[in-house]
Amino acid sequence: MAAVNRQWLLASRPVGFPKMSDFRLAETPVPAPGPGQMRVRNLWLSVDPYMRGRMNEARSYARPVPIGGVMEGGTVARVEVSNVKGFAPGAIVESRFGWQDYALSDGRGVRIVDPQLAPIQTALYVLGMPGMTAYFGLLDIGGAKSGETVLVSGAAGAVGALVGQIAKIIGCRAVGIAGGAAKVRHVVEDLGFDGAFDYKASSDYGAEIARLCPQGVDVYFDNVGGAITDAAFAHLNVRARVAVCGQISQYNVEAPERGPRLLGQLVVKQARVEGFLVFQFQERYAEGMARMAGWLKAGRLKYRETVTEGLENAPQAFMGMLKGLNTGKQLVKIADA
Amino acid sequence: MAAVNRQWLLASRPVGFPKMSDFRLAETPVPAPGPGQMRVRNLWLSVDPYMRGRMNEARSYARPVPIGGVMEGGTVARVEVSNVKGFAPGAIVESRFGWQDYALSDGRGVRIVDPQLAPIQTALYVLGMPGMTAYFGLLDIGGAKSGETVLVSGAAGAVGALVGQIAKIIGCRAVGIAGGAAKVRHVVEDLGFDGAFDYKASSDYGAEIARLCPQGVDVYFDNVGGAITDAAFAHLNVRARVAVCGQISQYNVEAPERGPRLLGQLVVKQARVEGFLVFQFQERYAEGMARMAGWLKAGRLKYRETVTEGLENAPQAFMGMLKGLNTGKQLVKIADA
Repeated sequence: MAAVNRQWLLASRPVGFPKMSDFRLAETPVPAPGPGQMRVRNLWLSVDPYMRGRMNEARSYARPVPIGGVMEGGTVARVEVSNVKGFAPGAIVESRFGWQDYALSDGRGVRIVDPQLAPIQTALYVLGMPGMTAYFGLLDIGGAKSGETVLVSGAAGAVGALVGQIAKIIGCRAVGIAGGAAKVRHVVEDLGFDGAFDYKASSDYGAEIARLCPQGVDVYFDNVGGAITDAAFAHLNVRARVAVCGQISQYNVEAPERGPRLLGQLVVKQARVEGFLVFQFQERYAEGMARMAGWLKAGRLKYRETVTEGLENAPQAFMGMLKGLNTGKQLVKIADA
Repeated sequence: MAAVNRQWLLASRPVGFPKMSDFRLAETPVPAPGPGQMRVRNLWLSVDPYMRGRMNEARSYARPVPIGGVMEGGTVARVEVSNVKGFAPGAIVESRFGWQDYALSDGRGVRIVDPQLAPIQTALYVLGMPGMTAYFGLLDIGGAKSGETVLVSGAAGAVGALVGQIAKIIGCRAVGIAGGAAKVRHVVEDLGFDGAFDYKASSDYGAEIARLCPQGVDVYFDNVGGAITDAAFAHLNVRARVAVCGQISQYNVEAPERGPRLLGQLVVKQARVEGFLVFQFQERYAEGMARMAGWLKAGRLKYRETVTEGLENAPQAFMGMLKGLNTGKQLVKIADA
């Protein structure tokens, strides 16, 4: 075991895009569990777009990380020492243990991961929060049905890659928007999307959407917002649904962006736009996990990971993900299982 | 009977706000009904915000009025001569007979109005399209429930005035936004809204909404769009619903307005925005009519009409309504019943 607990703390609230100086690496003693506590060793850290919001001062759906606080994040960890019933040393677990080597826990909100089911880090992706986000976001919020056209922004990202594949599994046409030719090839050739375009190489998103969605868009799964979303709205069908999962294009702007007013289009299209957080489906995770695990085992869900080695590189991994340098799930490998 | 059929034709497609020269009054022979037809005498004409859209070239949910075509509009009329079974001369009927003195019809889409139930022109308001819009928009699209706060823009307009009253009937707090002190007094003192503010006298819509909606906004019923709606979004509660009925502030802009991007707020609020057209509830009009008629008879729904006398003044009535000169339903009285 490492002699110290390395912890990434929030040093300052970012103005616009985060900088290395917004993070500080502290070294603290490895914590000793008291009665009713266990100590876990983090193995894998997930870095996700939502974390950018936690770095801001404004209270959102969750409390901000305080200045000097450990950066929040989901991890897969191994139980080292345990005074908690049901969590034996050696067990692999998943929870929000943060950007650090070690954490203490009383077991609440901790899920035991079955290493036989799939690689343990999938508990942070296909069989974890991003997987549930894609599953419930597409099927419940988006209400996608067989025969419909599903358009996904951020298609090569963790959630988007799954959304398109689930859409295909249930019989939809899946069209992606991604940044860069390699990502476009990936979602079409590796993941089986029906089509995709590279927004970085396009001067007319609307024309690309029209070309790839000749029947219009029934469900738009939005991870990015901004001008891409403006274009998608213009191609919504009557009674279309927009599932707003994220707006990553807007997370690092220094001044709020302005854009065309979109609500008028909703009236003539009788369309619905709904924002969601995966937590609202908490009581149905078992259903979602079972279906995603089934598709995964059957080889119907493929996934790619972008792995950054070492906790010391977590801020770079996080900032790279915000820039879209990852394909699929951005993970930080902290220690060998 | 008049010797001619006066008809308001669309002379040109308005650029920005409509002008008198966009309309042309034609005099044509009074039409004679053939077999399977009836002739009706229009008595009341309804002018409504949606008509502005029909004057544009772009196809929306309905075909545009062609240049030289009779302006579309709902009317209450009296059957004069009838070769249609079920429609006797003298019957009072409601349909989309247009901006003219007389019309022919084969009876399709024509509803017989019971003059005993309420004044016949209510078939164009409380017991007509605006009434159904308010009823289904608030209860189905908005999903308003007892104890919630309902905020309504365009609160002194035809639909808004009903929305606030239905909200009160089902046990909500109803708060209105209207233009001018007289309208604000009307919705609070006459219609029983819990509160309202005059956007024309306010420099900070958000502060007014916060003051009048101390528990936040659960349902925002939007008739206007623009900056008022931007402010309303900032006060949505978690799991709020926005029913987008109209965006009258945007109908006459020459260049599309830009505004703050709103979708990010939907994610953190897990909120839903849905545009709708009353026609989507067509199969449930009987339910809506029955409940609205019941509340009307019981004195629980009040309504005000702004009546312009004479078909010759229909364009002025329409343009006045677009400017918000009316309180409650803007009607044009064409002839005595």
